[in-house]
Amino acid sequence: MRRALALAASPGVPTGPNPRVGCVLLDDRGRTLAEGWHRGAGSPHAEVDALRQAGDTARGATAVVTLEPCDHTGRTGPCSRALVEADVRRVVYAQRDPNPVAAGGAATLRDAGVEVEGGLLEDEARAVNREWTFAMDHGRPFVTWKFATTLDGRSAAADGTSRWVSSRAARLDTHRLRALCDTMLVGTNTIDVDDPLLTVRGADDQPLIPQPLRAVMGLRDLPDAKRVFDDSAETVRLRTRDPLVALKELFALDRQHVFLEGGPTLAAAFWKAGLVDEVVTYLAPMLLGAGRNAVGDLGIGTIAGAAHLAVTDVTVLDPHEPGDDTNVRITLEPKETT
Amino acid sequence: MRRALALAASPGVPTGPNPRVGCVLLDDRGRTLAEGWHRGAGSPHAEVDALRQAGDTARGATAVVTLEPCDHTGRTGPCSRALVEADVRRVVYAQRDPNPVAAGGAATLRDAGVEVEGGLLEDEARAVNREWTFAMDHGRPFVTWKFATTLDGRSAAADGTSRWVSSRAARLDTHRLRALCDTMLVGTNTIDVDDPLLTVRGADDQPLIPQPLRAVMGLRDLPDAKRVFDDSAETVRLRTRDPLVALKELFALDRQHVFLEGGPTLAAAFWKAGLVDEVVTYLAPMLLGAGRNAVGDLGIGTIAGAAHLAVTDVTVLDPHEPGDDTNVRITLEPKETT
Repeated sequence: MRRALALAASPGVPTGPNPRVGCVLLDDRGRTLAEGWHRGAGSPHAEVDALRQAGDTARGATAVVTLEPCDHTGRTGPCSRALVEADVRRVVYAQRDPNPVAAGGAATLRDAGVEVEGGLLEDEARAVNREWTFAMDHGRPFVTWKFATTLDGRSAAADGTSRWVSSRAARLDTHRLRALCDTMLVGTNTIDVDDPLLTVRGADDQPLIPQPLRAVMGLRDLPDAKRVFDDSAETVRLRTRDPLVALKELFALDRQHVFLEGGPTLAAAFWKAGLVDEVVTYLAPMLLGAGRNAVGDLGIGTIAGAAHLAVTDVTVLDPHEPGDDTNVRITLEPKETT
Repeated sequence: MRRALALAASPGVPTGPNPRVGCVLLDDRGRTLAEGWHRGAGSPHAEVDALRQAGDTARGATAVVTLEPCDHTGRTGPCSRALVEADVRRVVYAQRDPNPVAAGGAATLRDAGVEVEGGLLEDEARAVNREWTFAMDHGRPFVTWKFATTLDGRSAAADGTSRWVSSRAARLDTHRLRALCDTMLVGTNTIDVDDPLLTVRGADDQPLIPQPLRAVMGLRDLPDAKRVFDDSAETVRLRTRDPLVALKELFALDRQHVFLEGGPTLAAAFWKAGLVDEVVTYLAPMLLGAGRNAVGDLGIGTIAGAAHLAVTDVTVLDPHEPGDDTNVRITLEPKETT
């Protein structure tokens, strides 16, 4: 199973609506017959990838797979059927399929006389597809809220100027994180005021292909000339002020990981609705003493009501160029309220 | 000289007005005759400590010492004289004595026919006594400004409540840093509002002996009943609003390292006067969204005028107790303005 998990996490698989899955076929003496993994929407599932390589040798084999084999026909046929047809004797899987559309594979296999065992290293398998698993469990995308701040919690100076609070290394790191998401979400106000392009560059500094979806949330009409409406990536308007409605719309568009970079008001609305799942903050070693606060009103009046978060990572981002600042990236998760 | 530097940094030497100094006496074949170090004000200087151990064998020896031997009579006699009287042939020192009162030892030694060489590993020697060296160079104490803040730059909630923003681990760590200073400085407003005791506990959680000086700055009269005026440590009133005047008064009291923990207004006054030499911030993984800003107005209006700092250390402080927060301590130095 560890090998199957490593296959699932193979590099180069594009971010897409499908989970990352790995599969190893073993003969009755435990020797590897074939290995397969899923390379993204439209390409064969991991089980089919492995079965094709194994050919007739798959008869009587054991399939070790990181996710319960799917039971539905999408762009590819159901894996449960493919395994039965290949005469596989036994299937061991890690994560139960949380996707109601695709679930049921284990039952289908058992009905066809295949030995089935589930739940082996399930936590590790869930972690391979953290956002996909979350989205299937909750019926909405996972939300990463990113903000940049000075040591004293400011995002802009008293006169509104803010270029650049973050160092160049932090800005490049932000592109790396954006590239892990499938949707960039901002509010109409950010489009109105900053007119960002909202495209993402990869590690080679070239525009990423495919680009994440650009989603603009809010009721306000916006001029077509805004850069977010150009053809460098898809853009969707979410005509609502309700964060949950916006997320449900994105989920219906097969979106599983939203990168929230809007202004403090939009972020505060998501926070207050309990719809922030991860916080990434870039801390610039600057003091402003005045100016715009990086975080807007969260409806917290007293210290006992403060929102506590769990620190999951602290990384020092050394400057790329002499004279630039060292920034600190802190990643956090909201703590469960007790 | 590396051995002499290690002796200078011997553990257990109390924080006091004197620099930490180490001395090694070598015979003409480079063998160690004796080692000495200074154990704090009132005890023998490093050279005298070593000479006493060497006795008559010091005749013709080389003294390797981390600081230029002193040339004045304080609570102990001048070391330059002691070295001449012991008939030492050669003196090698690291740091030139920046203290105008004590300097001149090298010249005295040369006049007496002793071979003198200075400047060996001078930077390392200066670092051993960073604050003392700074104070002697600048005629005022080194200032460490400490503040605690949430992720969004707040030090208290909208209703003024602030207990506790910092974790227990961060509060203990603050006591460790306070113990490295000789003076705790706050403003009258902090005394009025918070009535802190301003004493310091050591690693064993017992009150430190001796306690740092408690300095209260500002013109306002304060009731004698305030805890800072109890007998658990010395307290001095600095009746000025001018940070430089306050620091000069503390320097006259032999103070070399001030720990500035007052409110945002006092800290901002020091910052604006260019009198902050080190910043230590404890970052609590909390969001408040409103409330008191940790840092007060610094007179900065636009992003180009932002105060940039150099990050010298980032340390994650894991919680001491389950359920407590992970805090992050960031240490910085103001960047030279160019």
